[in-house]
Amino acid sequence: MRQNIKRLILLMHCPDQKGIIAAVTNFINSRNGNITYIDQYVDRLNGAFFMRVAIESMNNSINFNTFKSDFVKEFSSSLNLKCNFYQEDKLPKLGVFVSKYDHCLYDILTQQRSGKLKCEIPFILSNHIDLEYIATQFDIPFYHVPITKETKQEAEIEQLRILTKHKIDCIVLARYMQIVSKNLIDVYPSKIINIHHSFLPAFPGAKPYHSAFERGVKIIGATSHYVTEILDSGPIIEQDIARVSHEHEVLDLINRGQDLERIVLLRGLKLHCDRKIMVYNNKTIVFT
Amino acid sequence: MRQNIKRLILLMHCPDQKGIIAAVTNFINSRNGNITYIDQYVDRLNGAFFMRVAIESMNNSINFNTFKSDFVKEFSSSLNLKCNFYQEDKLPKLGVFVSKYDHCLYDILTQQRSGKLKCEIPFILSNHIDLEYIATQFDIPFYHVPITKETKQEAEIEQLRILTKHKIDCIVLARYMQIVSKNLIDVYPSKIINIHHSFLPAFPGAKPYHSAFERGVKIIGATSHYVTEILDSGPIIEQDIARVSHEHEVLDLINRGQDLERIVLLRGLKLHCDRKIMVYNNKTIVFT
Amino acid sequence: MRQNIKRLILLMHCPDQKGIIAAVTNFINSRNGNITYIDQYVDRLNGAFFMRVAIESMNNSINFNTFKSDFVKEFSSSLNLKCNFYQEDKLPKLGVFVSKYDHCLYDILTQQRSGKLKCEIPFILSNHIDLEYIATQFDIPFYHVPITKETKQEAEIEQLRILTKHKIDCIVLARYMQIVSKNLIDVYPSKIINIHHSFLPAFPGAKPYHSAFERGVKIIGATSHYVTEILDSGPIIEQDIARVSHEHEVLDLINRGQDLERIVLLRGLKLHCDRKIMVYNNKTIVFT
Amino acid sequence: MRQNIKRLILLMHCPDQKGIIAAVTNFINSRNGNITYIDQYVDRLNGAFFMRVAIESMNNSINFNTFKSDFVKEFSSSLNLKCNFYQEDKLPKLGVFVSKYDHCLYDILTQQRSGKLKCEIPFILSNHIDLEYIATQFDIPFYHVPITKETKQEAEIEQLRILTKHKIDCIVLARYMQIVSKNLIDVYPSKIINIHHSFLPAFPGAKPYHSAFERGVKIIGATSHYVTEILDSGPIIEQDIARVSHEHEVLDLINRGQDLERIVLLRGLKLHCDRKIMVYNNKTIVFT
Repeated sequence: MRQNIKRLILLMHCPDQKGIIAAVTNFINSRNGNITYIDQYVDRLNGAFFMRVAIESMNNSINFNTFKSDFVKEFSSSLNLKCNFYQEDKLPKLGVFVSKYDHCLYDILTQQRSGKLKCEIPFILSNHIDLEYIATQFDIPFYHVPITKETKQEAEIEQLRILTKHKIDCIVLARYMQIVSKNLIDVYPSKIINIHHSFLPAFPGAKPYHSAFERGVKIIGATSHYVTEILDSGPIIEQDIARVSHEHEVLDLINRGQDLERIVLLRGLKLHCDRKIMVYNNKTIVFT
Repeated sequence: MRQNIKRLILLMHCPDQKGIIAAVTNFINSRNGNITYIDQYVDRLNGAFFMRVAIESMNNSINFNTFKSDFVKEFSSSLNLKCNFYQEDKLPKLGVFVSKYDHCLYDILTQQRSGKLKCEIPFILSNHIDLEYIATQFDIPFYHVPITKETKQEAEIEQLRILTKHKIDCIVLARYMQIVSKNLIDVYPSKIINIHHSFLPAFPGAKPYHSAFERGVKIIGATSHYVTEILDSGPIIEQDIARVSHEHEVLDLINRGQDLERIVLLRGLKLHCDRKIMVYNNKTIVFT
Repeated sequence: MRQNIKRLILLMHCPDQKGIIAAVTNFINSRNGNITYIDQYVDRLNGAFFMRVAIESMNNSINFNTFKSDFVKEFSSSLNLKCNFYQEDKLPKLGVFVSKYDHCLYDILTQQRSGKLKCEIPFILSNHIDLEYIATQFDIPFYHVPITKETKQEAEIEQLRILTKHKIDCIVLARYMQIVSKNLIDVYPSKIINIHHSFLPAFPGAKPYHSAFERGVKIIGATSHYVTEILDSGPIIEQDIARVSHEHEVLDLINRGQDLERIVLLRGLKLHCDRKIMVYNNKTIVFT
Repeated sequence: MRQNIKRLILLMHCPDQKGIIAAVTNFINSRNGNITYIDQYVDRLNGAFFMRVAIESMNNSINFNTFKSDFVKEFSSSLNLKCNFYQEDKLPKLGVFVSKYDHCLYDILTQQRSGKLKCEIPFILSNHIDLEYIATQFDIPFYHVPITKETKQEAEIEQLRILTKHKIDCIVLARYMQIVSKNLIDVYPSKIINIHHSFLPAFPGAKPYHSAFERGVKIIGATSHYVTEILDSGPIIEQDIARVSHEHEVLDLINRGQDLERIVLLRGLKLHCDRKIMVYNNKTIVFT
């Protein structure tokens, strides 16, 4: 079957070596691909090469499956290359996990509806029912999966069942407030995005605004990152900050911080959904 | 002897209570003082009241010493008040400590010469001689006080001798790279300003740019703060940040960071020299 | 009838003169008012004094009407003072005008629902029906008032009817895209807030992102301001910016800009609804 | 004569067409060049392709002159390409024009001395003698070329003589305060860098801080740009901003602005000296 594609995103990395760009661009040219974006990055410390290429098929003349398998055949051993291809018209399916805070959830839903956040949202999942009304407002299925210390394991099995059923590509923890366990992380490596309400690595863990207030900082921050097994230590995607002063009490920090949280999470999500991020050695390479 | 003053800065704090502002402004009005600036802050958590007032003497009609002693007599017990008065025309004397980096030193000297940093700089002191030529360039006495593990105690005695000789009011550690000991801190409480080349409390201690690179942060920062006995944990005066990306190696972070360091240190110094900072509970109240 | 109030906001201005703060704080103290916030600003160029005071009634012991009339009696002629009192528990009624863009509207509605934007929203009004579904989603009355060159006058009469019917205190033009006429502005002086999608005074008028692209700026901005008769020239409330580069085409500027627009409009709205803004000589004094 | 080079910077542009990157990287590879940096930009609106490449000569095996002429021969007609090569070890010669403000001058000199601003500074030129002492301080020749309405033409002839004598590559107007005429601009196209003390295109011309104060903006800015015949309208290199409030009088804006000016000018200068800027259609393409 012939697959008609419009635009293909290639994310690749390999050991740094001479002639990679020429080789890859030659290949794409020879297959009638039109390169509309190309950016590369060389990690000299680790001798690693990274590239993002956007390829347009002229007159839909590229057969995606053939192109992809030929590309892998050509380069996977010769360049020792690892790559991922994404069709731009196949939107990633995003599972949204929330708890009781509505600000990040509202931003995700409204930006997705406006077409700014390019993904599908098959469901919202929460350990509480407080935000179910927003799911209803936006006509999205809502799963209530309560979690207690005792039921955590069962709850995660239920979560995995829901995620699998909806063929979820990535998960966003939109102020989910629960620690996600290894079982889930292993199934979605570099595919679970969290928003932490501090400028990591400052103030990891619980109640960062209280700690920021205690320390008397003049700037607060928020950090979106991929979730790994070590709490608040995964690859950082995006960060931003806001000025505060001695006049701000904890509640003021929380209020100012929530504006940061929604913006920083959304930026991270957009970068992920637009296939602009590669993860390497617990860091992100972000092609902008 | 009658003291002719133009402008007086009052920094005061006391337990929060009704009628403080009225009482203090009534007093100043009754003594022919003209209030050209007044700002107050109430720390509700600790029930503490803070105020900064700039008082102009009309036709130099205020006797500073009388005014001050009357003020203290009136309020020190009735309001349980602590206060400091500063004459705006008496510039603070700033002792500058450096090591080998020139960027903060250059900024301090050029801004002082331009009249933006309102202080006197009686000397520059360093444990190395690398920057002596800059002292010469700006015609400022330079003291070379080398420090080794063995000679640290003697070196500090020498430093104290120099500081005392020049009647220094405050000290700036302009990338001094040495840990200042309790002996010095006790003599200059909340009067030693350091620039730390990270966004505290992230990355305290040595080599913060290396740590920031390791962690893959997307924003770096700098922090000016008062020095206390606990390393990099004193009251924060000012912070600022700069965006970085995966493309920046450690050296790039260092270069970008140095621009931050000089700006954040200078802002902190200016605030201090302009008598705009009060310290309370290891935090700063900054009247801007 | 005795009015039980919790918290009263006073915004006042008068010619600058000695003893204002003492007089006003003395008055409030003598009436059992507890000052929980006080900030003042002196415009030396124009010799004008501005103050914002938050007054708590202890045990609800203040009769608002008496307090207010006594205050006016005491000071309006002696200080030549103008003042406005607001009860914190009486939320301002905000009329929301939109056209076809949803991003600002969504932000206003979700932040109001979360309790961050402290106002009532009696209706949404638009010259198009595109966003009616959002009004439905949030269960808010929607008025469709189409405007053509010919019907502009009638449309404005209809708008005024709706505004009056709902006892609207202030209006937000949330990317309304229509020029509001003198008729409306005269009824709501310093009470109509607009978001302009540029860093005013750069790029006033239509299509600012196109102009910014043409000029090759490295930073774009957004400005929330009060509407006056002269287009995009009213008192500026809040501005913010985002970095752009040569890589960004007009559409990229629009997308980046929309995040700015919603944040800058929201900040302006919050300041207005929290009674933190005074307008004077086509500028805003913002007490933060 | 064989020229031993370490690193070569190539800036090129041509009509956008398929296979450029492959062709150019193939050429460099075939001549033993090692590409250590490559970045490209396609201006789709104008169908123009831009690229910056850093090429290392392995074991100094590249003859620069041959390489360059072969490159031009190969591509200038086939790709209709325009290019410039720069040897990284040949520092550009920067002529510094000042008037009476010292802040930008100090920053340029100290950063050049620290090795951060990679250029030579053969002289400082001014229409006043106020800053001669700084030239002396840094041991740099100082030319005093006074300018009056009547002597402007002669003064410019003298300036050109000095510029030619010192084989100047580019000029920085470090708050020079004089309008540079077409005669000079024609000799140094896209090679004269100015700092304008506003966020262009807002407030072009004289006294922008006064205008910003008048307008009541909440953010001020500075802009470094190439000088063209139309005042303050040349290609923008870099911009940055600082927050201000109603409390800031004109003098406060000037003081805050000067910190912006020196930073924004320095960033622009560094980009220029590091050969990271291309100019096209009155805009800059900045490779970072």
